[in-house]
Amino acid sequence: MVQKVECAIQDRYPDDFSWCYGCGRLNKEGHQFRTGWDGDQTVTYYMPEPDHKAIPGFVYGGIIASLVDCHGTGSASLALHRKNGFEPDNEELPPRFVTASLSVNYVKPTPEGTLLKAVGTVEEIHPKKFKVAVDVFADGDLCATGEVVAVVMPASFGAK
Amino acid sequence: MVQKVECAIQDRYPDDFSWCYGCGRLNKEGHQFRTGWDGDQTVTYYMPEPDHKAIPGFVYGGIIASLVDCHGTGSASLALHRKNGFEPDNEELPPRFVTASLSVNYVKPTPEGTLLKAVGTVEEIHPKKFKVAVDVFADGDLCATGEVVAVVMPASFGAK
Repeated sequence: MVQKVECAIQDRYPDDFSWCYGCGRLNKEGHQFRTGWDGDQTVTYYMPEPDHKAIPGFVYGGIIASLVDCHGTGSASLALHRKNGFEPDNEELPPRFVTASLSVNYVKPTPEGTLLKAVGTVEEIHPKKFKVAVDVFADGDLCATGEVVAVVMPASFGAK
Repeated sequence: MVQKVECAIQDRYPDDFSWCYGCGRLNKEGHQFRTGWDGDQTVTYYMPEPDHKAIPGFVYGGIIASLVDCHGTGSASLALHRKNGFEPDNEELPPRFVTASLSVNYVKPTPEGTLLKAVGTVEEIHPKKFKVAVDVFADGDLCATGEVVAVVMPASFGAK
């Protein structure tokens, strides 16, 4: 079973948009989540750091929420990019999304020291708005479910 | 205007429950959110680190989600503690909550370099379950709203 994303959409974000604490490849202090296709679903793998605990033995919910957040925006970007005829191994710049809303249900405590796998199912609800249902697994156990509504980043958002 | 929480509920959590990456006073790598009363509402102040960005100029949504999360559990703890007759400046150990669910609506981009203020309104929906509505302000501007459902931590959760 593949436990690594080969072609991540975040690898293709332009440098100016690659500083996200969650998924920016240039943010060395961040989580550097990487999201790719797994058939018609999307996947992000992440191993939490030892400090990322809620109480000893269990992962902090804010880390799970962060994983769901960036997995959601990355999945939306993958989906619109594919709709436009591109895959993340193309050189073409992908569309960049921001999170409109995020929700997480904590199904069971997430054990520490286990590779997490976020799996996304993307639905287009408007040409510029996508809904991503996210399941987070630890060693095959469903620990959290979430939903992200992601919208195409407004041009004004990155204006300097 | 007071911009600091004098008596935080997290200051009273027992050591074993003070390692949370969001609000554990013993987790030196974490955010160390501190939540206290402000009249009948609750408040947490937080200055994001420079790395905690989404894109340059704006705070990462996962940090906002983390703030909402711990502000929610801390507020629930404050509320049940007060119901039991105690305030966070008492020596009495407060009840500890875990997050059942978390939602965040990102109302507008949150500017970097600004002290964030989370304000909570707590509602008891069951003797062991509290709902906390959270508003997150940056310099007086409402940037995000959220909701946390927090439940009293099951005894099994901390079992070693």
